[in-house]
Amino acid sequence: MRTVLSTSRSDWSACFADRVERMKASEIRELLKLLDQPDIISFAGGIPNPALFPTATIADAYAAILSDPATAGPALQYSTSEGYRPLRRWIADHMAELGVPCSPDHILITHGSQQALDFLGKLFLSPGDTALVTYPTYLGALQAFSAYQPMYQRLAFENTERTAASYSRTAFHSGSRLRLAYVVPDFSNPTGETLPRAAREHLQDLAEELQIPVIEDGAYEALRYGGEAVPSLLALDIARSGSIDAARTIYCGTFSKTLTPALRLGWICAAAPVLNKLVLIKQASDLHAATINQMVMHRTAETCFNTQVATARTTYRERRDTMLAALERHMPPGVAWTRPEGGMFVWMTLPEHLDGATLLEQAVRLSRVAFVPGKAFFVDGSGANTIRLSFSLPTPEKIDQGIARLGALLTSLSAGA
Amino acid sequence: MRTVLSTSRSDWSACFADRVERMKASEIRELLKLLDQPDIISFAGGIPNPALFPTATIADAYAAILSDPATAGPALQYSTSEGYRPLRRWIADHMAELGVPCSPDHILITHGSQQALDFLGKLFLSPGDTALVTYPTYLGALQAFSAYQPMYQRLAFENTERTAASYSRTAFHSGSRLRLAYVVPDFSNPTGETLPRAAREHLQDLAEELQIPVIEDGAYEALRYGGEAVPSLLALDIARSGSIDAARTIYCGTFSKTLTPALRLGWICAAAPVLNKLVLIKQASDLHAATINQMVMHRTAETCFNTQVATARTTYRERRDTMLAALERHMPPGVAWTRPEGGMFVWMTLPEHLDGATLLEQAVRLSRVAFVPGKAFFVDGSGANTIRLSFSLPTPEKIDQGIARLGALLTSLSAGA
Repeated sequence: MRTVLSTSRSDWSACFADRVERMKASEIRELLKLLDQPDIISFAGGIPNPALFPTATIADAYAAILSDPATAGPALQYSTSEGYRPLRRWIADHMAELGVPCSPDHILITHGSQQALDFLGKLFLSPGDTALVTYPTYLGALQAFSAYQPMYQRLAFENTERTAASYSRTAFHSGSRLRLAYVVPDFSNPTGETLPRAAREHLQDLAEELQIPVIEDGAYEALRYGGEAVPSLLALDIARSGSIDAARTIYCGTFSKTLTPALRLGWICAAAPVLNKLVLIKQASDLHAATINQMVMHRTAETCFNTQVATARTTYRERRDTMLAALERHMPPGVAWTRPEGGMFVWMTLPEHLDGATLLEQAVRLSRVAFVPGKAFFVDGSGANTIRLSFSLPTPEKIDQGIARLGALLTSLSAGA
Repeated sequence: MRTVLSTSRSDWSACFADRVERMKASEIRELLKLLDQPDIISFAGGIPNPALFPTATIADAYAAILSDPATAGPALQYSTSEGYRPLRRWIADHMAELGVPCSPDHILITHGSQQALDFLGKLFLSPGDTALVTYPTYLGALQAFSAYQPMYQRLAFENTERTAASYSRTAFHSGSRLRLAYVVPDFSNPTGETLPRAAREHLQDLAEELQIPVIEDGAYEALRYGGEAVPSLLALDIARSGSIDAARTIYCGTFSKTLTPALRLGWICAAAPVLNKLVLIKQASDLHAATINQMVMHRTAETCFNTQVATARTTYRERRDTMLAALERHMPPGVAWTRPEGGMFVWMTLPEHLDGATLLEQAVRLSRVAFVPGKAFFVDGSGANTIRLSFSLPTPEKIDQGIARLGALLTSLSAGA
């Protein structure tokens, strides 16, 4: 028998790359486990309503593709990193309807828009670089970008004193370079707010001056329930620059909120020089998106995208209206919230002395209501007195009940303060 | 109308992160495009034979899951980053059969083993760190790791003068730290060779002394056609260390070579502290693997994994035997090749004066035969006189014809030299 001097194997932290220090378990993720308890009314998960999934269409697509030998073989084989061309073509046509004339060559299929954000971090961010993000912003974007160890600066629209020069100066004083701006312009996760056209134009000016790409996360763009649509940042960029290949805006889309998140299919629409590099990143990261899922998504989108979006709008609009009405009825003074024109989220600001995480613990224990504390969406540790409420999943009745319970809890806490 | 000072938008290269410089289009990938020409006999793609895909079982699984409301809802919804627990349990049982006792908590589901390699690069490699790899090694691993900007050192088994101290010294002199070793121990891509048990024990000693993780790429492990199975590195590690949680070997597995690559499902089996970090990386990278595909793969593996592997072995064994016999018959003196006990590849060393890339151009043009030039598999730019031949896809008849054509070309080149 050979004997080897035994060294401690338990100190893995010494083996990990520096970037791992910034990886922390997400509050949202831990919270999703609460959804399994039936008496809890959850406004936590920002996930689509499963009653809306086009199950029969998807089942038919899998069956049709796998029963025809001409499609079954390719469906189960390796395919190209760019993605299934008919799906890319469908998406290019869809982008054209959104004011973004482009070809399938400007589309990369990703495993959801989360992977799009990871790839864009990989493409643009070196350690110490600066990314401009709103405070708050989508937590998943912060998780994706933070693996590439950037600094963050607050992208502010209301504060007109921030000029391109002031962003540059702040970065320069930290020894950093400005590398990208990231926004969710429509019905943002987490705030539900929409960036007005003037703010979009301002962001384009800023990006032009700073010569940085703008990452536009269009995850919720299709889910508008009222108000007037604002052109996407990429559409505005193309209107200025003349073509997708001259644009510096990079659009991330997804089927997760409109058809189903479970096939993990999203896309990036960008200028050819950017897309060509992203294809190499896709290849090195996981070769390509699941072939059969891309074929199924193509058929499903062709068959029912518009009707699905129409149904989703009707369903979510009712839930949003119910939540907003319930908030008016049940919330005590000192609590403020957004009135989203679409998406899945209402953002609530509590009185200064209340902490969202503490409130969650109380709400689950005393009132059987769940939501997401807002602090995790802020990179600077602020926002302790904010919470995110999602209206996508509970029925209108449950929404009314849940908001009533939360309102009663907040009223009792206000009375006790 | 607003006017904005127009700056050049075309210089994207100035916007990309440093790591992007190392991302180059793969020769393999460009070559796959040749497969579409019907008169070419291709030994290029290392892809499974589509005739072996368990299409009916997979079709049944999609149909069953989507026709039952109890499974259809969850199948189309977001799920956990770790992966679908019944599939993780099946994989844990499978690993136990390979001499690796472990639980589902030691398994992360990834989008193929390519994603496993990307995640392990992300977990362990900072710029300038050193990864130990064989020369040649799997090109996809180099692509995955290189995004994290490591240096490489050659992991040598035949050269007994290389000790732990010598690896450390070389790294130290480059201002680098040794961070991981990567091997494909069974029927390696690209060489087809298997690491003998003594070499595996040597690698474990080395990793123990250097206190680095060993990444074991088990992509081909199930596809043995002759000879005696060698225990996996992880099994040997556990035999020494006592348990999966004390092991420093990290195993990457995949369904791509046994059932189908198109569902993009593989796994990492590792100690809990490593797996917990990888779950966070999965979450930040693409949230989770496609839910429905995981459920389908679970049913498919339960139904037919063993019979599929048996059929694959029979099919590929015949093709390997045909290729080896044809090589004996048709190759001129001065050409050497490996005799793989499994997998998909034969590795050929040409006379010194021949270049694999030049030969490919000639072979496609003059002989209508394709393969992969070996140089891309070497990080040091050597290996110009090597090529990789895959026997997985062509019929035995085509293999014999193709090798005869290649042999005739090489004979004519030898005569002309």
